Amino acid sequence: TAAPLVILLEGDGVGPEVVREAAKVLRAVAPHIQYQSELLGGSAIDATGVPLPQKTLSACRSAAAILLGAVGGPQWPRKDATTGVLGPRPEQGLLEIRKELDLFANIRPCVFPSDSLLNYSPLKLETVKGAEFIVVRELTGGIYFGERQEENAEGEAWDKMVYTVPEIQRITRIAAHLSLLTTPPRPIISVDKANVLASSRLWRRVVTQTLAVEFPTLPPPTHQLVDSCAMIMVKNPRALNGILLTENMFGDILSDEASVIPGSLGLLPSASLNGVPGGAEKVVGLYEPIHGSAPDIAGLGIANPIGTILSAALLLRYSLGLEKEAKVVEDAVRKVLDDVSSGGLGLRTKDLGGDATTEQIGDAVVTQI
Amino acid sequence: TAAPLVILLEGDGVGPEVVREAAKVLRAVAPHIQYQSELLGGSAIDATGVPLPQKTLSACRSAAAILLGAVGGPQWPRKDATTGVLGPRPEQGLLEIRKELDLFANIRPCVFPSDSLLNYSPLKLETVKGAEFIVVRELTGGIYFGERQEENAEGEAWDKMVYTVPEIQRITRIAAHLSLLTTPPRPIISVDKANVLASSRLWRRVVTQTLAVEFPTLPPPTHQLVDSCAMIMVKNPRALNGILLTENMFGDILSDEASVIPGSLGLLPSASLNGVPGGAEKVVGLYEPIHGSAPDIAGLGIANPIGTILSAALLLRYSLGLEKEAKVVEDAVRKVLDDVSSGGLGLRTKDLGGDATTEQIGDAVVTQI
Ligand SMILES: CC(C)[C@H](C(=O)O)[C@@H](O)C(=O)O
Ligand SMILES: CC(C)[C@H](C(=O)O)[C@@H](O)C(=O)O
Repeated sequence: TAAPLVILLEGDGVGPEVVREAAKVLRAVAPHIQYQSELLGGSAIDATGVPLPQKTLSACRSAAAILLGAVGGPQWPRKDATTGVLGPRPEQGLLEIRKELDLFANIRPCVFPSDSLLNYSPLKLETVKGAEFIVVRELTGGIYFGERQEENAEGEAWDKMVYTVPEIQRITRIAAHLSLLTTPPRPIISVDKANVLASSRLWRRVVTQTLAVEFPTLPPPTHQLVDSCAMIMVKNPRALNGILLTENMFGDILSDEASVIPGSLGLLPSASLNGVPGGAEKVVGLYEPIHGSAPDIAGLGIANPIGTILSAALLLRYSLGLEKEAKVVEDAVRKVLDDVSSGGLGLRTKDLGGDATTEQIGDAVVTQI
Repeated sequence: TAAPLVILLEGDGVGPEVVREAAKVLRAVAPHIQYQSELLGGSAIDATGVPLPQKTLSACRSAAAILLGAVGGPQWPRKDATTGVLGPRPEQGLLEIRKELDLFANIRPCVFPSDSLLNYSPLKLETVKGAEFIVVRELTGGIYFGERQEENAEGEAWDKMVYTVPEIQRITRIAAHLSLLTTPPRPIISVDKANVLASSRLWRRVVTQTLAVEFPTLPPPTHQLVDSCAMIMVKNPRALNGILLTENMFGDILSDEASVIPGSLGLLPSASLNGVPGGAEKVVGLYEPIHGSAPDIAGLGIANPIGTILSAALLLRYSLGLEKEAKVVEDAVRKVLDDVSSGGLGLRTKDLGGDATTEQIGDAVVTQI
């Protein structure tokens, strides 16, 4: 079979810097992969006028997987010099690529890549120790893609949060798949606002029923209200250990809240998939760190590439089926981050109070491989 | 003028216990107030069949203010023994009373009532010290009260998040009022999801314009995306010091997230108003602790009454114009909670690791007055 093709979408801000290091790591661990760079976001707007050029989209459709840096920056949306009209936003490119490739499942593990980092958390050690959960966010439905009305003549605007049975079924299957990867299976905690929203009542019914019918060996899910979940995540995050399964908007808020628990946004990866990984059908996946484009430090070579490198590990695991190689990368990252006292290199970028450069971290991970 | 009438809605679970202590405190500090108890929530369902009886609503309409304990419990909704149909939910009473009395402004201060409590926070001391903000949540609009569709024959369900210009204007005025209570005015941070939602784009435009036109002396607001705000609240809550102004659903999530920062839900008060307090027009206010009905400890006499007592202080301030009396209550609470080493009583209920009873706390606050 042909060498798998990975599309690199460097994006804006620190995107190119962190993607470069992750690609270096991928080359070290899986030399047979082929690469092609394409434009997305602000840089695509500047080059082509649109945040998701047709060429990028076609390349992504035919690829085995996509590795993305970050999009956005203060220079966008640009204002037309003569008409004053605002141009497109880089983030539109992100929303479009999710929809076009049907990347309905956003997976964000919230774990410490190394125990040496526990003290970077804003939470007390005894609160955060042992917290380990995965947020599974529905990414192509809900209020993000429902009908909407911009401000009209009556001064009213609205957005429709809408879900259908099949949309909820397929994201539930992703959660069940992730749950079953460990023995015993991780508990599934479904998050909604069923005491107020009709779409949440549908969500709760379909999650419960899909698990009962299709995954009878799994324990039934528990259900949390989103407000209460936001609370527990800070007060006692271990109580959420398992798979947090939720809809698009709640997932946006909760996964960002979860992401600061390990102390630096720079550490965390994410995967967005269009199906259950490891099955018979080909799954397209987009992998990206959860941090933004950080325009303030772009070009300085000090951004933390760990989130992108760990995203590359997820790419190996979910899109290329290279579990062993994924583990090698994760272990190498752990060694680079681990304190010297526990046999690691203790390398830290600026966001973690260290002075390692982006490139030094990338090189160190490669050396560990 | 006649003595002001305060309606006591004890509600369910620990509600009666905490309201009793708060009423005791009110009697000590403002003996001229009159009281009348009415039913709301589960106890109202059991007695009358509905969570908000007409008698309760009429009493509330004619009162100066309302003090509520909490509603809800595992015994509701009750199932009809013959038909199997589920009865009403206690929370419906809460949503109805908000709507009926037009209580559009929910105000939740997130502050430590005593510095002695700083170490109860799940956040590290250096992260949380000095954090002090007020969440102003729009309470009668948005996705809570828009049109909705329960699951239909096509397996689809939806909820409409809708806002109008006047709804956003009036809640912005409340935020501005609270901002102007201090010198310099507290910064206003408006929270939305304007990069995705039309209703958020309207929100952002109207908040900005209302402040610019009606409150030209105030500095312009800053704007945060809700996901980023949920993150900052944990990572660096001091960065949010000021007034967090947001719509109903985001406010539900963010105010619950904020509420765990001071370590015990039992400590925090809230006020829900139908207008700007202290103005010419009469303002109806409903005051309640932010904790729930805690059925697991109901009847044991160990619930923390501080949240309800501090809600009573807000009632004195906002609905009765008794600022001095409100301060007296808040100071008394501080003395009861302060460590012995700093001249306080150091009394703590079980939620804070102590063994003081609900009644002992109430009595101690009265003694300090
Ligand atoms: C940029 C924005 C539209 C996006 C979202 O809200 O989904 C981002 O916050 C994310 O979580 O990837
Ligand atoms: C009980 C529920 C309907 C309510 C809400 O969501 O508004 C509660 O969470 C609150 O914040 O007062």
